[in-house]
Amino acid sequence: MKKFIDSPDSLLTTSLRGFAKAHADIVDLNETPHFVRRKHLKPGKVALISGGGSGHEPLHSGFVGFGMLDAACPGQVFTSPTPDQMISAAQAVDGGAGVLFIVKNYAGDVMNFEMASEMLDLPNASVLVNDDISLPKTHAIGRRGVAGTSIVEKVVGAAAEQGYDLAACKALGERVVSATASLGVALTSCTVPALGHPTFTLGDDEIEMGVGIHGERGRETVKLADASHIVAELTQHLFDELRPAAGQNVLLHVNGFGGTPLIELHLLYELAHAQCGRRGLTVQRSLVGNFTTSLDMAGASLTLTVLDEEMLKLWDAPVNTAALRWGC
Amino acid sequence: MKKFIDSPDSLLTTSLRGFAKAHADIVDLNETPHFVRRKHLKPGKVALISGGGSGHEPLHSGFVGFGMLDAACPGQVFTSPTPDQMISAAQAVDGGAGVLFIVKNYAGDVMNFEMASEMLDLPNASVLVNDDISLPKTHAIGRRGVAGTSIVEKVVGAAAEQGYDLAACKALGERVVSATASLGVALTSCTVPALGHPTFTLGDDEIEMGVGIHGERGRETVKLADASHIVAELTQHLFDELRPAAGQNVLLHVNGFGGTPLIELHLLYELAHAQCGRRGLTVQRSLVGNFTTSLDMAGASLTLTVLDEEMLKLWDAPVNTAALRWGC
Repeated sequence: MKKFIDSPDSLLTTSLRGFAKAHADIVDLNETPHFVRRKHLKPGKVALISGGGSGHEPLHSGFVGFGMLDAACPGQVFTSPTPDQMISAAQAVDGGAGVLFIVKNYAGDVMNFEMASEMLDLPNASVLVNDDISLPKTHAIGRRGVAGTSIVEKVVGAAAEQGYDLAACKALGERVVSATASLGVALTSCTVPALGHPTFTLGDDEIEMGVGIHGERGRETVKLADASHIVAELTQHLFDELRPAAGQNVLLHVNGFGGTPLIELHLLYELAHAQCGRRGLTVQRSLVGNFTTSLDMAGASLTLTVLDEEMLKLWDAPVNTAALRWGC
Repeated sequence: MKKFIDSPDSLLTTSLRGFAKAHADIVDLNETPHFVRRKHLKPGKVALISGGGSGHEPLHSGFVGFGMLDAACPGQVFTSPTPDQMISAAQAVDGGAGVLFIVKNYAGDVMNFEMASEMLDLPNASVLVNDDISLPKTHAIGRRGVAGTSIVEKVVGAAAEQGYDLAACKALGERVVSATASLGVALTSCTVPALGHPTFTLGDDEIEMGVGIHGERGRETVKLADASHIVAELTQHLFDELRPAAGQNVLLHVNGFGGTPLIELHLLYELAHAQCGRRGLTVQRSLVGNFTTSLDMAGASLTLTVLDEEMLKLWDAPVNTAALRWGC
């Protein structure tokens, strides 16, 4: 394993310290327990908190700031944060209007956020993100939360900033989740520092369709194909899931898993944009880059959100975080 | 080779189309010849143009926009752009105050920008960026231009926006170059699409110190070490080069080469920040992320710029590009 680390044990804390220093105008770091919080809180606003295993940066710490999250609770790499992190974070960023947890659908995350919710002495609610369509809707533990999480956090973050109350933020978040679907493909596995070797292996001519973001195997291993073929297959599954009508507005998010260069992500975007056009959809907004990563995995996911007017306005609202910034 | 491409021949054009669509509010794409230009020009402003081989995204196209470049001329992957690109770009973005070319020091780039300069029927000047200290100053073709290029483009871009004339922009650019040094280390090679295999190989316990950004071998192959040791060595070389005095302000740029996750880049930043502190330097500003990449190479470089008051103000000035955005 070749990584820039001193030891797997110190990676998270050292990296968070660096992150907080590099973005000291936007965030503060709490170390015991770990959470990243927005530096300048807005009293009276619903507090938005997310979190999950580390290794997906910039998700979630990179989305803390004006117009998005109030706090992010990072667990160790690919490991859920513990309830004390969410409770401490909630107490630190509470603005008097309640706390909304945005939770990716993984058993550990769900359990620990639920525990925090029960123990928390503040009004709170949760939005569960389960945008990964690689598993059937009927799967026992449900579908996973992946790159669509960024879209949920941006839209609901803008709403909270504009004064939506807790119930309205929750309802909006669930509406965005319903309108969002993602599907990913890996060219390589990733290497978890504490493990020291790739979590799965692929042949030189194989790719993994329907992967999540934790180095787990995907839905199926298939032969390497042209980007056009890969994109046609991914977008077809997204269209089958969301069933958007011709003329609808969509947000198209091409998300890199960490090891794929931007030149390839923009190529995927061009091809996916063309597929949306063939379907009669208007790509009103886009997001291309490494936002929900899986350490050093080479690969990418496509996310589509069918936008209504309200979501579009909230997407365009100002945001000032380490990873997303406009209008500020 | 596993990449998201249809063919090496179509990669650049398709990717540029995607880039231009994803950032249609900021840039326009010209296809014959290839250049990316700022959508909304400012008459009377010195026009800033850069370019070079592709594969370093977001450099340079991602830096086109308000407060930074007026145009970027991308060659094929790791291949210099041709003079007609720079000439067409210059004619397209000329604001009546002359054209400044920002050129990374590579033989092909230098030759083709010089040819464009001679053929161009507009007042023009050039700034040569040669911040890579892995080669001695006395090297026959001189030092290469690497990640410090972003810093030059941001600072001079702000100056041009504020009305500096051509001579002042050139002088400022040269001052930033003098105040800037970079040094990189690779954990893996990169794979050029047209070649289909890594451009060099490293053992599982080897890293390459002093690499450039074109998949060429570096200064020496050494044993893999802790991140702390790597950062101590890189920063020592940067300090030896720049000889900053205790108390000086610096900008610390940790640049990923494309295949290294953000969690590691922020760890490198924390360690480099500590080394600056030990040297008595104040890290006034920072930039952490993948900005000057080498396709899918795992690795990173450290760049230090010794800031004066003018550079600091220009760094902080508003910028609105695909890859750098603040204050807008």
